[in-house]
Amino acid sequence: MAQTITPPRGMRDFLPTEKAARERALGIIRRSYTAHGFDEIETPVMEDIERLHSGLGGDNEKLSFSVLKRAIPASELERAAANDDAQSLADLGLRFDLTVPLARFYASHRGELPSVFRAIQIAPVWRAERPQKGRYRQFVQCDIDIIGEPSQLAEAEIITATLATLDELGLEGCTIRINDRRLLTAMLNVFGFAEAEHPQVLITVDKLDKIGAEGVVAELRDRAVTPDAVDALDAFFHRVTTLEFNPFGVRAITKALPHGVDPAIIDELAALADVIDPAVLVFDPFLVRGMGYYTGTIFEIAHPDLSFSLGGGGRYDGMIGRFLGQDVAACGFSIGFERIVDLLQSEQVGLPDALLLLHDPDASPAQLLGLKTQLIAAGTRVRLERRTKNTQAQLTRAAAAGFTTFAFVTPTTHALADLTPKPL
Amino acid sequence: MAQTITPPRGMRDFLPTEKAARERALGIIRRSYTAHGFDEIETPVMEDIERLHSGLGGDNEKLSFSVLKRAIPASELERAAANDDAQSLADLGLRFDLTVPLARFYASHRGELPSVFRAIQIAPVWRAERPQKGRYRQFVQCDIDIIGEPSQLAEAEIITATLATLDELGLEGCTIRINDRRLLTAMLNVFGFAEAEHPQVLITVDKLDKIGAEGVVAELRDRAVTPDAVDALDAFFHRVTTLEFNPFGVRAITKALPHGVDPAIIDELAALADVIDPAVLVFDPFLVRGMGYYTGTIFEIAHPDLSFSLGGGGRYDGMIGRFLGQDVAACGFSIGFERIVDLLQSEQVGLPDALLLLHDPDASPAQLLGLKTQLIAAGTRVRLERRTKNTQAQLTRAAAAGFTTFAFVTPTTHALADLTPKPL
Repeated sequence: MAQTITPPRGMRDFLPTEKAARERALGIIRRSYTAHGFDEIETPVMEDIERLHSGLGGDNEKLSFSVLKRAIPASELERAAANDDAQSLADLGLRFDLTVPLARFYASHRGELPSVFRAIQIAPVWRAERPQKGRYRQFVQCDIDIIGEPSQLAEAEIITATLATLDELGLEGCTIRINDRRLLTAMLNVFGFAEAEHPQVLITVDKLDKIGAEGVVAELRDRAVTPDAVDALDAFFHRVTTLEFNPFGVRAITKALPHGVDPAIIDELAALADVIDPAVLVFDPFLVRGMGYYTGTIFEIAHPDLSFSLGGGGRYDGMIGRFLGQDVAACGFSIGFERIVDLLQSEQVGLPDALLLLHDPDASPAQLLGLKTQLIAAGTRVRLERRTKNTQAQLTRAAAAGFTTFAFVTPTTHALADLTPKPL
Repeated sequence: MAQTITPPRGMRDFLPTEKAARERALGIIRRSYTAHGFDEIETPVMEDIERLHSGLGGDNEKLSFSVLKRAIPASELERAAANDDAQSLADLGLRFDLTVPLARFYASHRGELPSVFRAIQIAPVWRAERPQKGRYRQFVQCDIDIIGEPSQLAEAEIITATLATLDELGLEGCTIRINDRRLLTAMLNVFGFAEAEHPQVLITVDKLDKIGAEGVVAELRDRAVTPDAVDALDAFFHRVTTLEFNPFGVRAITKALPHGVDPAIIDELAALADVIDPAVLVFDPFLVRGMGYYTGTIFEIAHPDLSFSLGGGGRYDGMIGRFLGQDVAACGFSIGFERIVDLLQSEQVGLPDALLLLHDPDASPAQLLGLKTQLIAAGTRVRLERRTKNTQAQLTRAAAAGFTTFAFVTPTTHALADLTPKPL
């Protein structure tokens, strides 16, 4: 009996042309980040379940796939049933991001790494999200992180490296929306939100792109946070929508914030304009970034033709300390590989020489393998295919797969000189 | 509180130099198999649990990691406890090989693939084995398979491509131990084993390398299989150990088998010598290969300096039919990536130009990023590092990481012409 033959829900198979396009893009990303002085590492796809559920992953923790212990005694199963706690039967989980594993990796290997460690991670992660167009349960993330560099040199290096990589991929013209968590906190304090209200307010403000200023204000009124603070935010929304935040610098940032925010933080953020072309930086006082672990600069990639972000990141100085018992500066940038690969032109880049050898059913294996071996030795990619009635369809398919020439093998074809390759 | 910081049991982190060596080897394998006309594909790491436990994976099924359903009602948990059936709480599992996913992939996408499909799969698999030296719970397999080619052209192509790839990796001098499942069956029939006894006898014969001929005979006597058949096998062991199986061909194979084996099967296997250099083929009448799905030729890679096999494969014509409901010819070869990467010389292949820039703490980010950007544009890999008291240790570490030159950045270094790179 034939079984079901589709991949699991929300996960994908990649056919040869798709896989080739992905590997090509990954190769570009790997080479570019390596040129910028970053080193690739790899961690296992699974981590101990306590580590994944230690509060660092935000909402993603709830979406993680848990792996059953290998041997579960009946008594343990009964206890899980009695407590209605299926999770107690799992000891491992699939990673939902590359940041938690990196923090664990760094804590484990610190002594073997440079004092300022620049990491590349290119690897799949898993989230049990409701599948929808462009959102998958297994997807690749490409992260770079700099650990151990407290100065803004880290932000400057990862933003520069990321923009250069996007350029290499053919995605020119990207800009960086940028903010600082400390400015967000200062702003909420100026408006009069209680500190305990900050997390909720940030979650709501994070929806600004989707629900607009009115939506944000309405939701905050519903949540019954300090009414005067909501009024102040509302007034601020009315004011800033008339502002120009450019060119990036102290002046634009100061103008875009309510009075009373510490100018030292503004100066620090604005100093990035000394290092990075200010034209690619856009201050966004409402950029929040969902994860709770960010402590300073936060940023997202914007592309003029796209309504969604191509990636994001920020500074998270407190996080590594959770594993190491000692704070270490850290700053990272993650690009959304699945979105990027969808945007790239699906041009077929065949190898310089790729030859389809069409042969009759009675061609001998020795003859065919002999030809193939000679061609490969001469630097040609070769595919053998038995000639079918619909030869034209075979040629069309080979051209689509990146083959550039074809030739027929007859009983008298034995040496390369006997072949007459024609363009596909 | 600092948490545990090691990877899960039996799984590994890869540091930059290890990861670079792995990616280098993977790149060679990918390029070589692609030149031989194979196409890379990818499937999700998880498959539906029924599919993984459909009997195609042999003993590996018992070693698979199972993934908990995302929402488990209390009633389902109670039912699992009542039946002592924790597995009923899982709906997905991590793949334990790349063959079961390939069969599912081919069944799903057959209409989009060439009539003879040559697949490359390079991907991790997971098995909950007892961790020991050289055996891991997450490891990479590199498989090639030809689906839809019933003739020995398939065997010839995958053996040729695999040997060429091992050559490219620097592992010259490998040979192929080869046998045919049909010869094994014929041999057991000649000895007088009942058909129902074959699986057990094959499991025992498969241990020949470890426990020797006496061990095999003793174990079979313990198992109480047909005593006369065991006597016949015992006598055969005494005869064949005095034989030369080379050169590979009809004569050697016939001599190495008991009388009464169908010569047609021998002729078919021997015909490989017309296509592949007979010097790399070694007939092994006791090669079994563990998996139950093999139907014809089976083979393993032997290296003169190694006591273990570097990979293996064979023909498995019946398997795809389990998913497709229609038999399709298939033949595959899997190389053991982890063993191979351990064998490769761990030579540090730096990029042609890789420059370490050592700077003082007070160097400005703008100055440093400016230099870095100019160097990268000129094709140089660059790493910035703050100069520490132990500069010599920094230089040694950079050399080990593949950097070839270094230079100091002083307050007056602004242009490339101001740098004086020295060899590391």
